[in-house]
Amino acid sequence: MSPTTSLHELGSDALDSVHLRGLIDERLNAFLDAKRGRDTDVHLVSLIEHLRGFLSAGGKRIRPLLCMVGWHAAGGHGETEPVIGAAASLELFHAFTLIHDDVMDASDTRRGRPTVHRALETGADPTTAERFGTNSAILLGDLVMVWSDELLYSSGLDQQQLVAVRPLLDAMRTEVMIGQYRDLLATGEPNADVERSLAVIRYKTAKYTVERPLHIGAALAGADQSLLDVCTAYALPIGEAFQLRDDLLGVFGDPSKTGKSTLDDLREGKATALMAHALRAADPGQARVLRSLVGDPALDEAGAETVRGVLRATGAAEKVEQMITDRVQRARRVLDEAPFPDEVRKTLDTFVTTTTLRTT
Amino acid sequence: MSPTTSLHELGSDALDSVHLRGLIDERLNAFLDAKRGRDTDVHLVSLIEHLRGFLSAGGKRIRPLLCMVGWHAAGGHGETEPVIGAAASLELFHAFTLIHDDVMDASDTRRGRPTVHRALETGADPTTAERFGTNSAILLGDLVMVWSDELLYSSGLDQQQLVAVRPLLDAMRTEVMIGQYRDLLATGEPNADVERSLAVIRYKTAKYTVERPLHIGAALAGADQSLLDVCTAYALPIGEAFQLRDDLLGVFGDPSKTGKSTLDDLREGKATALMAHALRAADPGQARVLRSLVGDPALDEAGAETVRGVLRATGAAEKVEQMITDRVQRARRVLDEAPFPDEVRKTLDTFVTTTTLRTT
Repeated sequence: MSPTTSLHELGSDALDSVHLRGLIDERLNAFLDAKRGRDTDVHLVSLIEHLRGFLSAGGKRIRPLLCMVGWHAAGGHGETEPVIGAAASLELFHAFTLIHDDVMDASDTRRGRPTVHRALETGADPTTAERFGTNSAILLGDLVMVWSDELLYSSGLDQQQLVAVRPLLDAMRTEVMIGQYRDLLATGEPNADVERSLAVIRYKTAKYTVERPLHIGAALAGADQSLLDVCTAYALPIGEAFQLRDDLLGVFGDPSKTGKSTLDDLREGKATALMAHALRAADPGQARVLRSLVGDPALDEAGAETVRGVLRATGAAEKVEQMITDRVQRARRVLDEAPFPDEVRKTLDTFVTTTTLRTT
Repeated sequence: MSPTTSLHELGSDALDSVHLRGLIDERLNAFLDAKRGRDTDVHLVSLIEHLRGFLSAGGKRIRPLLCMVGWHAAGGHGETEPVIGAAASLELFHAFTLIHDDVMDASDTRRGRPTVHRALETGADPTTAERFGTNSAILLGDLVMVWSDELLYSSGLDQQQLVAVRPLLDAMRTEVMIGQYRDLLATGEPNADVERSLAVIRYKTAKYTVERPLHIGAALAGADQSLLDVCTAYALPIGEAFQLRDDLLGVFGDPSKTGKSTLDDLREGKATALMAHALRAADPGQARVLRSLVGDPALDEAGAETVRGVLRATGAAEKVEQMITDRVQRARRVLDEAPFPDEVRKTLDTFVTTTTLRTT
């Protein structure tokens, strides 16, 4: 599992994210090795290697890294077993959400490779391969969720850390699933409700990707509520900005860099703020174009280009860029006041830049 | 959530299973009430009520009850918060496995009602209802698994109990998923491999339904390895017998009593010991019948009746009855020697009868 360039950026001249990522991936591999060593069940081994392949295919390790940043933000020193274990367990949990997410979206590619359910089809009876791949991916996702827990609890948290982390972990898991469910309810029919799309973002990304990982790391170091609140004040705007950028990249990005198709979100009819702004500003003709093309599973690149044209012409893309800028400013104001060690402040400041100006 | 008759049988004139079940269902309802109280999110509330409906629709509460039996087997007294919480959390975990199982099998009914993914289709846009129901059920299953954990950890286990239970819980969860995956790999093509079908049973039912619940309850009461081993010696044969009975009921049962279609297993081509014995003993004509009908998603009742005829004519049904009898005897021999309190011995003896002679 080698660090990606985007990672080098995160936390450069502050916390050494490449070093931290190395520790996290080491821990993940050691966990999978132990699983493989303990159980010689050939079927389990094949699932383990599918998972290892998925983890090593990339991923920014944002949640584990933010967990370790939270640890340092609350005065944690060095990288202890519990914090590395907790950080790594967040990546396993995230792998579970991605595996199930791709099943639910019926996505074919992730990180520039076939999604897990597609990969698991290989070698199966062609007449039932698709169903077998889907069912195997549901099961592997379930297994990975269970294992994320196992990894956390095998990392030597003391009773006090367990008591501090447990409710945050429970909240994180429930929040991401509510976010997913809201997303599910909103998807398919493009609608002009910007607030609704932001509510999904808040649960699915801002809290799940940024706030809770920071909280969990900080709690391991014994953070009090006021410090957790500062983490929240930074996390929510930057988490929203992160997802807003993701939505832009999902339509305007370069698949060779993002490893993600620029058709999936449009075919799926993902209810993004981008789409909501477009529908809000669209004239009747533009609205017709959006309603006819967005959410069409058979949308081709030409159709997508037409949609992109409307997203630009309505000023929606620009509006989303503005929303990102506003949130970046809010997050930076919080950082200026935050009682964090300098290296943490620097890292979180770099994170603002890399997440909102990123191209991958 | 009212007790079912089958439950009255379990533990009659021994541990009061109706009382125990009452405690478990109370705990489950209190947990869901708290969830509902804490979060007014309308979407979450609807998911919670879907789950409550699923739980209250029936289910024998076998795992929670065995967990409490294990607690008493190891000398636990009374019903403390941790043991009730652990027991109830096993039922939530089981609800998760059933919800995902029904998605994977695309089953329409469970416990005489529409399966969760079917129920969740209600009110959705007809053109996408099926996919919406499936995706919502995957998410609800995920949420329920997370909540089973939350319920366990909110039940006041002390550090010693946590350390004792954790590895057993981790093992249980991984085992059931390996069992499910093996089941997935074996399903579709009927085959004559009895051993292979028994391996699935061992993971999916014997360990998951009987051994681990007993272990977890016993561990809460501080059981040592030798006591856990006695639980295992009882649990594996009786767990296998339980599943063998289930397989017979899945083909020959009375749907009005089991609440389960007698076509699903045959349509799915479930690789049961019953089917393996039939294929082993079948003459070429009977083998052709089985291979053409079993695993056919469109199998109708007439075709199913033909298959049942072959299962009887080949002596397969009888062989499976014999396998059940052998296992019942093995389990009873273990019970005679087991260092369990009398009430526990009585309860586990009654459990042998009710699980293997049951009609539901």
